[in-house]
Amino acid sequence: MSDKIINIDKLIAITSQDMSRVNNLIIERTLSNTEMIPKISQYLISSGGKRLRPMLTIAASQLCECKNDHYLSLAASVEFMHTATLLHDDVVDDSSMRRGKLSARMLWGNEASVLVGDYLLGEAFKMMVDAKSLKALEVLSNAAAIIAEGEVMQLVYSNNITISQEQYFRIINHKTAKLFSAAAEVGAIISNTSLDIANALRDFGLYLGIAFQLTDDALDYSSTKDKLGKDIGDDFYEGKITFPVIVSYKKSTDSEKEIWNYLLTKEEKNQDDFYDALKLIQNKNGLETTLEEARIYGQKAINSLEIFPKSEIKDALIEGVYFSYNRKN
Amino acid sequence: MSDKIINIDKLIAITSQDMSRVNNLIIERTLSNTEMIPKISQYLISSGGKRLRPMLTIAASQLCECKNDHYLSLAASVEFMHTATLLHDDVVDDSSMRRGKLSARMLWGNEASVLVGDYLLGEAFKMMVDAKSLKALEVLSNAAAIIAEGEVMQLVYSNNITISQEQYFRIINHKTAKLFSAAAEVGAIISNTSLDIANALRDFGLYLGIAFQLTDDALDYSSTKDKLGKDIGDDFYEGKITFPVIVSYKKSTDSEKEIWNYLLTKEEKNQDDFYDALKLIQNKNGLETTLEEARIYGQKAINSLEIFPKSEIKDALIEGVYFSYNRKN
Repeated sequence: MSDKIINIDKLIAITSQDMSRVNNLIIERTLSNTEMIPKISQYLISSGGKRLRPMLTIAASQLCECKNDHYLSLAASVEFMHTATLLHDDVVDDSSMRRGKLSARMLWGNEASVLVGDYLLGEAFKMMVDAKSLKALEVLSNAAAIIAEGEVMQLVYSNNITISQEQYFRIINHKTAKLFSAAAEVGAIISNTSLDIANALRDFGLYLGIAFQLTDDALDYSSTKDKLGKDIGDDFYEGKITFPVIVSYKKSTDSEKEIWNYLLTKEEKNQDDFYDALKLIQNKNGLETTLEEARIYGQKAINSLEIFPKSEIKDALIEGVYFSYNRKN
Repeated sequence: MSDKIINIDKLIAITSQDMSRVNNLIIERTLSNTEMIPKISQYLISSGGKRLRPMLTIAASQLCECKNDHYLSLAASVEFMHTATLLHDDVVDDSSMRRGKLSARMLWGNEASVLVGDYLLGEAFKMMVDAKSLKALEVLSNAAAIIAEGEVMQLVYSNNITISQEQYFRIINHKTAKLFSAAAEVGAIISNTSLDIANALRDFGLYLGIAFQLTDDALDYSSTKDKLGKDIGDDFYEGKITFPVIVSYKKSTDSEKEIWNYLLTKEEKNQDDFYDALKLIQNKNGLETTLEEARIYGQKAINSLEIFPKSEIKDALIEGVYFSYNRKN
């Protein structure tokens, strides 16, 4: 299989029947007499996210030949956790766009975004309880705390160019990779597999999540708004020090470092600043280096699947890895 | 026992040993390498809240002669859920004061308040999982969603004087009473009691929570900042239509109703507006009516305990009810 794949058609096809059950569950669980809750939830949920995380739970449970239906509510709960995070992130980052549409907070305000996020988090936990697995609950509740911890770390390090590569990886492990990891692991846990299998899927999700986030970091400096569904340069404007910046800064001359310091400590960053930063990154091949790093983590993800014999679903998951670092949005 | 009690000394004494174990657990669970998390959590947690909710879990488990230690992590998780709600509420309400100190968002910003709230919610669920009771998890995760739903309802009805008494009770049931109810119910569940006992404690918590919130509503128009630990009039300025307003409006003449409409739809409410509202409430005995309603719900709470024989812990809980509607802060 060539690794130049930029779609997840196989994964979508193989999980489509289950995904449609999960989608029904998602809609059903956003229903509330308080109209604003289904309105905001469904606005965001139906706005064309890739739903990779619930797909991962489903694929993992298929790989483990799950004999019960509980993976469905776990998959839905993973998507709710993700959606809640997006709602809160947009408030924290003052984002105006999300998935090519105005962000929920622009339409309904920060207050509603915070509270509907809380509601979805509560519903996520209800669905986990429905799956009746304390072990899966342990993994997912742990992920919930770790994701928030990662977001706090990111906030603490915003605009701080002295962040180490190690700290950067700690942040993306927490804020992104942990949920991918938990999504895959609970697919195994709910299938009552051995610990080895569950750990293999946990690692697979973790590495895939890192590859995914590194690619996100690169896309934020290289995609177009149409493709990305949000403004490019968001990370820069929000003061997030991502991998392309870190590697480029490291290779910078003293005078280039001065420019970086100027750009990142500027209160109000404008488009000219963004293009200056982009030029500095391009001069040091920062985006290529980032995508190469993503490819390395992608390979680690694939290696984690060695424990499984060849199968259609395993191939689809490997295709998902290729997609994670070759995608254009 | 006279019902004029304005302290919970008995309840504090009888739960003090367990509370100190819960307090240790709370401190331990806010530790994180991300300094901002323990800083914000402990700032709020150590700022002199009454910790009624975890006390309720402990008292319920004592009443049910719990034979295991798991009620401790449930008690701590209930306090974390409450603390997370406070952090998010302050963001939603733009509050500057909480428990007599600057609110966390004033010191560390809205972003950190949202994210640390999320972290505490995640830790709350981890502690619930530690207690290894799916039934308790069901009750508490359900409460998490319902609390958020109540907060959204409150937001939807802000500044809306046409809110019915029924809708008002629906809101306070969700946003306040549900957590009191869950706190008491899980104390029974974790003790492996009969359903009757668990339901009695669920009802007790629910009615106590309603009495507590009604009293809060009255205090916000009648206490002093020193006693209350936050500005009086907060509800008015934030556009929350509470029981004193609803009952006073209902008894108003057409011209008084016009004043209410003017006051509540005003974009920027000032202190004169607050005192005008207070006068309208006082003219209709709005605060007395509210406290009388609180007393009625307090009585319902006490009646819910009929199933239990007389005991020291039962007396302490009844004292807690008297406190809920006689307290001055």
